[in-house]
Amino acid sequence: MNISVISTAQQAQDIDFGGKIAVVIDVLRATSVITTALSNGAREVVPVKTIEEAQSLYAQLEPTMTLRGGERHALKIEGFDFGNSPLEYTKERVGGKTVILTTTNGTNAINNVKGADDVILVCFRNAEAVVDYVLERLSHRDSHDVAIVCAGTEGRFSLDDGLCAGLLIDLLQQKAEVELDDLGILVHHYYHENKANLLAALSGCFHLKRLISLGFESDVRFCLETNCASAVPVFADGRLVLENK
Amino acid sequence: MNISVISTAQQAQDIDFGGKIAVVIDVLRATSVITTALSNGAREVVPVKTIEEAQSLYAQLEPTMTLRGGERHALKIEGFDFGNSPLEYTKERVGGKTVILTTTNGTNAINNVKGADDVILVCFRNAEAVVDYVLERLSHRDSHDVAIVCAGTEGRFSLDDGLCAGLLIDLLQQKAEVELDDLGILVHHYYHENKANLLAALSGCFHLKRLISLGFESDVRFCLETNCASAVPVFADGRLVLENK
Repeated sequence: MNISVISTAQQAQDIDFGGKIAVVIDVLRATSVITTALSNGAREVVPVKTIEEAQSLYAQLEPTMTLRGGERHALKIEGFDFGNSPLEYTKERVGGKTVILTTTNGTNAINNVKGADDVILVCFRNAEAVVDYVLERLSHRDSHDVAIVCAGTEGRFSLDDGLCAGLLIDLLQQKAEVELDDLGILVHHYYHENKANLLAALSGCFHLKRLISLGFESDVRFCLETNCASAVPVFADGRLVLENK
Repeated sequence: MNISVISTAQQAQDIDFGGKIAVVIDVLRATSVITTALSNGAREVVPVKTIEEAQSLYAQLEPTMTLRGGERHALKIEGFDFGNSPLEYTKERVGGKTVILTTTNGTNAINNVKGADDVILVCFRNAEAVVDYVLERLSHRDSHDVAIVCAGTEGRFSLDDGLCAGLLIDLLQQKAEVELDDLGILVHHYYHENKANLLAALSGCFHLKRLISLGFESDVRFCLETNCASAVPVFADGRLVLENK
């Protein structure tokens, strides 16, 4: 298996993902939010780039069955049902509903991946489940190329996404022969050396520090819980659903 | 001092470097070539993006005092005086001459840095000299922002540049208070853990493997020699000269 790691949503825009499985990461917090919402019974999550797109789509859907979530500058968007905290997306609130989500980095990264055979989402919580899904998909195919797309933070590489990419590589390496690209080597090394304490490994991470300064420490701790969710969000026809739906 | 690390020449294009010292790295091989050419007495090196620009500039200059160097797909360009091997740029050949250079990644990275207060070049060979130069320049200024621009390889992060960025950070950290961005944390960690054997640390590096497969192993070894050159190439008015010229 050849694994390449893309450092930002912006970089993803210039890449042809043809023949590849693309795995998108935005640990803090979009892919953690989406994994949690679908785990908690949301019917689907529709990732859109702008607030205007979110509002325009909402106007076309059944309002009692549709929720709007997301953030700008890490904070809830006015008039929306949720911010970007995974802890808000409870069974009671999202069960059976469509969630329209717009965030600064993650929902752009998902929409920037063009041409991939499969687009799936990963975070620390569902990494093991994603590995099993990727290996199962690859077993039916000739190509064995996996692209890990780190969403980044406002156009820059973000260490939380890199650390999660390192975990994913570590798990894949335990079950398959893996060839890494240069960024893959770097993030895997960093994960491997720091896996005993992920929070400490991210103590210098710009995005994590900003979230903690805004009062989102419980989100951060939730997003760093590893291999506790079995949901694998799959992106197709503009929406994210669970793999087995 | 705030240090940010930019992963590719392409990413540099979207950044405003105003108020910053930009340090450009293309270890294999452009910044190693330019450092060597200037160390060996070249009057100046003019980095240009395309072969056409190189030819057009050459036509305007005195042919006995001007040389053309560079590569496409790592190989010498037809009709040029040099390829992109630092070992070719000897005192006998470059002394007193203008060298027009065009390469796939490094000369683009240099030209993509816009608005910086200073643009200087680093490679493993002159890292210590660059650190002294940066600290001297910062001592006269209010801003203490340094951007390390890794040229990358064809739009992707390259581990050789990252490892050299890690060395630069390591040396700066020994002499000043340093705040790192996320990619800076990652490359510094990798350098720190691997400084005893740089060649082994790069054994998986795509660009290094390609150069070795093309017969450039002696170039690679030369480019990984650390802190053996005192030349600091400074970019101003479209040309690179030694700092004290």
